[in-house]
Amino acid sequence: MSEPFESYYAVIFTSTQKENIEGYPEMADKMEALARQQSGFLGMHSARNQVGITISYWKNLEAIKNWKQQCDHVIAQQKGRKDWYSWYSVKVCKVEREYEFSL
Amino acid sequence: MSEPFESYYAVIFTSTQKENIEGYPEMADKMEALARQQSGFLGMHSARNQVGITISYWKNLEAIKNWKQQCDHVIAQQKGRKDWYSWYSVKVCKVEREYEFSL
Repeated sequence: MSEPFESYYAVIFTSTQKENIEGYPEMADKMEALARQQSGFLGMHSARNQVGITISYWKNLEAIKNWKQQCDHVIAQQKGRKDWYSWYSVKVCKVEREYEFSL
Repeated sequence: MSEPFESYYAVIFTSTQKENIEGYPEMADKMEALARQQSGFLGMHSARNQVGITISYWKNLEAIKNWKQQCDHVIAQQKGRKDWYSWYSVKVCKVEREYEFSL
Protein backbone atom coordinates (compact mmCIF):
# COMPACT_ATOMS: atom_id res chain seq x y z
CA MET A 1 0.00 0.00 0.00
CA SER A 2 1.27 3.45 -0.83
CA GLU A 3 0.46 6.69 0.95
CA PRO A 4 -1.95 8.99 -0.88
CA PHE A 5 0.28 11.50 -2.69
CA GLU A 6 -0.37 15.12 -1.86
CA SER A 7 0.60 17.19 -4.86
CA TYR A 8 2.66 20.33 -4.46
CA TYR A 9 4.39 22.78 -6.78
CA ALA A 10 7.83 23.26 -8.26
CA VAL A 11 9.19 26.46 -9.79
CA ILE A 12 11.93 25.71 -12.30
CA PHE A 13 14.17 28.73 -12.79
CA THR A 14 16.69 28.23 -15.61
CA SER A 15 19.14 30.97 -16.55
CA THR A 16 22.27 32.07 -18.32
CA GLN A 17 24.36 34.92 -16.96
CA LYS A 18 26.45 37.78 -18.26
CA GLU A 19 30.22 37.72 -17.75
CA ASN A 20 30.28 40.29 -14.95
CA ILE A 21 27.96 39.17 -12.18
CA GLU A 22 29.30 41.39 -9.41
CA GLY A 23 26.98 41.29 -6.42
CA TYR A 24 25.11 38.23 -7.66
CA PRO A 25 26.42 35.56 -5.23
CA GLU A 26 25.56 37.72 -2.21
CA MET A 27 22.08 38.43 -3.57
CA ALA A 28 21.51 34.74 -4.38
CA ASP A 29 22.39 33.79 -0.78
CA LYS A 30 20.13 36.51 0.56
CA MET A 31 17.21 35.43 -1.64
CA GLU A 32 17.62 31.78 -0.67
CA ALA A 33 17.55 32.69 3.02
CA LEU A 34 14.47 34.84 2.43
CA ALA A 35 12.68 32.14 0.42
CA ARG A 36 13.26 29.66 3.23
CA GLN A 37 11.36 31.99 5.58
CA GLN A 38 8.33 32.25 3.29
CA SER A 39 5.11 30.52 4.25
CA GLY A 40 4.55 27.42 2.11
CA PHE A 41 8.24 26.98 1.19
CA LEU A 42 9.13 23.27 1.04
CA GLY A 43 12.70 23.10 -0.27
CA MET A 44 15.21 24.16 -2.91
CA HIS A 45 17.97 22.75 -5.12
CA SER A 46 20.48 24.68 -7.25
CA ALA A 47 23.33 23.91 -9.62
CA ARG A 48 25.10 25.92 -12.29
CA ASN A 49 27.44 25.04 -15.16
CA GLN A 50 26.78 26.49 -18.63
CA VAL A 51 23.22 26.93 -17.51
CA GLY A 52 21.98 27.58 -13.99
CA ILE A 53 19.03 25.66 -12.59
CA THR A 54 17.23 26.52 -9.37
CA ILE A 55 14.18 24.52 -8.40
CA SER A 56 12.12 25.67 -5.45
CA TYR A 57 9.23 23.65 -4.05
CA TRP A 58 6.07 25.18 -2.64
CA LYS A 59 2.91 24.02 -0.95
CA ASN A 60 0.56 25.77 -3.36
CA LEU A 61 0.19 28.51 -6.00
CA GLU A 62 -0.66 31.09 -3.35
CA ALA A 63 2.78 30.59 -1.74
CA ILE A 64 4.47 31.00 -5.15
CA LYS A 65 2.53 34.18 -5.85
CA ASN A 66 3.44 35.63 -2.45
CA TRP A 67 7.12 34.88 -3.02
CA LYS A 68 7.04 36.38 -6.52
CA GLN A 69 5.59 39.59 -5.10
CA GLN A 70 7.72 39.74 -1.93
CA CYS A 71 9.22 43.22 -1.85
CA ASP A 72 12.97 42.46 -1.59
CA HIS A 73 12.52 39.67 -4.13
CA VAL A 74 10.91 42.07 -6.61
CA ILE A 75 13.96 44.34 -6.28
CA ALA A 76 16.28 41.34 -6.81
CA GLN A 77 14.32 40.33 -9.94
CA GLN A 78 14.69 43.84 -11.38
CA LYS A 79 18.42 43.86 -10.65
CA GLY A 80 18.74 40.39 -12.19
CA ARG A 81 17.19 41.54 -15.48
CA LYS A 82 19.29 44.71 -15.52
CA ASP A 83 22.70 43.38 -14.38
CA TRP A 84 23.11 39.60 -14.23
CA TYR A 85 20.98 37.53 -16.56
CA SER A 86 21.24 37.28 -20.33
CA TRP A 87 18.29 34.88 -20.34
CA TYR A 88 15.97 33.16 -17.92
CA SER A 89 12.90 31.03 -17.91
CA VAL A 90 10.43 30.43 -15.09
CA LYS A 91 8.15 27.40 -15.22
CA VAL A 92 5.44 26.79 -12.63
CA CYS A 93 4.77 23.05 -12.36
CA LYS A 94 2.47 20.77 -10.40
CA VAL A 95 4.40 17.79 -9.02
CA GLU A 96 2.10 14.88 -9.79
CA ARG A 97 4.23 11.99 -8.59
CA GLU A 98 7.69 11.18 -7.37
CA TYR A 99 9.96 8.39 -6.29
CA GLU A 100 13.30 8.25 -4.63
CA PHE A 101 16.35 5.99 -4.42
CA SER A 102 18.72 6.06 -1.49
CA LEU A 103 21.64 3.83 -0.48
CA MET B 1 -3.58 38.93 -25.88
CA SER B 2 -1.64 35.84 -24.93
CA GLU B 3 -1.46 32.54 -26.76
CA PRO B 4 -3.40 29.66 -25.20
CA PHE B 5 -0.82 27.73 -23.19
CA GLU B 6 -0.50 24.06 -24.04
CA SER B 7 0.68 22.25 -20.95
CA TYR B 8 3.48 19.70 -21.13
CA TYR B 9 5.52 17.72 -18.64
CA ALA B 10 8.85 18.08 -16.85
CA VAL B 11 10.80 15.28 -15.19
CA ILE B 12 13.05 16.65 -12.45
CA PHE B 13 15.90 14.25 -11.73
CA THR B 14 17.97 15.33 -8.72
CA SER B 15 20.93 13.26 -7.54
CA THR B 16 24.07 12.93 -5.48
CA GLN B 17 26.90 10.69 -6.63
CA LYS B 18 29.48 8.41 -5.11
CA GLU B 19 33.17 9.41 -5.30
CA ASN B 20 34.09 6.97 -8.04
CA ILE B 21 31.81 7.52 -11.02
CA GLU B 22 33.88 5.72 -13.64
CA GLY B 23 31.89 5.28 -16.82
CA TYR B 24 29.23 7.77 -15.78
CA PRO B 25 30.05 10.71 -18.11
CA GLU B 26 30.01 8.43 -21.17
CA MET B 27 26.71 6.89 -20.11
CA ALA B 28 25.18 10.32 -19.40
CA ASP B 29 26.12 11.49 -22.91
CA LYS B 30 24.72 8.32 -24.43
CA MET B 31 21.44 8.62 -22.49
CA GLU B 32 21.04 12.28 -23.47
CA ALA B 33 21.52 11.41 -27.15
CA LEU B 34 19.02 8.58 -26.79
CA ALA B 35 16.44 10.73 -24.97
CA ARG B 36 16.63 13.32 -27.77
CA GLN B 37 15.58 10.63 -30.24
CA GLN B 38 12.51 9.60 -28.22
CA SER B 39 9.07 10.51 -29.47
CA GLY B 40 7.59 13.37 -27.43
CA PHE B 41 10.97 14.67 -26.19
CA LEU B 42 10.91 18.47 -26.01
CA GLY B 43 14.21 19.50 -24.39
CA MET B 44 16.66 19.04 -21.54
CA HIS B 45 18.79 21.06 -19.11
CA SER B 46 21.49 19.77 -16.75
CA ALA B 47 23.86 21.18 -14.14
CA ARG B 48 25.83 19.64 -11.31
CA ASN B 49 27.62 21.03 -8.25
CA GLN B 50 27.02 19.43 -4.84
CA VAL B 51 23.79 18.15 -6.27
CA GLY B 52 23.06 17.26 -9.88
CA ILE B 53 19.87 18.42 -11.54
CA THR B 54 18.63 17.19 -14.90
CA ILE B 55 15.28 18.39 -16.17
CA SER B 56 13.82 16.81 -19.26
CA TYR B 57 10.66 18.08 -20.93
CA TRP B 58 8.10 15.85 -22.58
CA LYS B 59 4.91 16.24 -24.58
CA ASN B 60 2.84 13.94 -22.35
CA LEU B 61 2.93 11.16 -19.73
CA GLU B 62 2.98 8.48 -22.42
CA ALA B 63 6.31 9.79 -23.73
CA ILE B 64 7.75 9.78 -20.18
CA LYS B 65 6.58 6.22 -19.61
CA ASN B 66 8.12 5.07 -22.91
CA TRP B 67 11.43 6.70 -22.02
CA LYS B 68 11.42 5.18 -18.53
CA GLN B 69 10.93 1.73 -20.04
CA GLN B 70 13.30 2.13 -23.02
CA CYS B 71 15.61 -0.89 -22.91
CA ASP B 72 19.06 0.79 -22.85
CA HIS B 73 17.72 3.36 -20.40
CA VAL B 74 16.54 0.61 -18.04
CA ILE B 75 20.05 -0.85 -18.06
CA ALA B 76 21.52 2.62 -17.37
CA GLN B 77 19.12 3.08 -14.43
CA GLN B 78 20.20 -0.25 -12.92
CA LYS B 79 23.86 0.66 -13.34
CA GLY B 80 23.20 4.07 -11.81
CA ARG B 81 21.70 2.55 -8.66
CA LYS B 82 24.51 -0.01 -8.41
CA ASP B 83 27.57 2.12 -9.24
CA TRP B 84 27.08 5.89 -9.41
CA TYR B 85 24.29 7.36 -7.30
CA SER B 86 24.15 7.62 -3.52
CA TRP B 87 20.72 9.22 -3.80
CA TYR B 88 18.28 10.34 -6.44
CA SER B 89 14.78 11.67 -6.73
CA VAL B 90 12.50 11.68 -9.76
CA LYS B 91 9.55 14.05 -9.87
CA VAL B 92 7.02 14.03 -12.68
CA CYS B 93 5.49 17.48 -13.05
CA LYS B 94 2.89 19.17 -15.22
CA VAL B 95 4.14 22.55 -16.47
CA GLU B 96 1.15 24.81 -15.92
CA ARG B 97 2.61 28.13 -16.95
CA GLU B 98 5.87 29.77 -17.87
CA TYR B 99 7.48 33.04 -18.80
CA GLU B 100 10.82 34.03 -20.16
CA PHE B 101 13.24 36.94 -20.13
CA SER B 102 15.78 37.51 -22.84
CA LEU B 103 18.16 40.39 -23.59
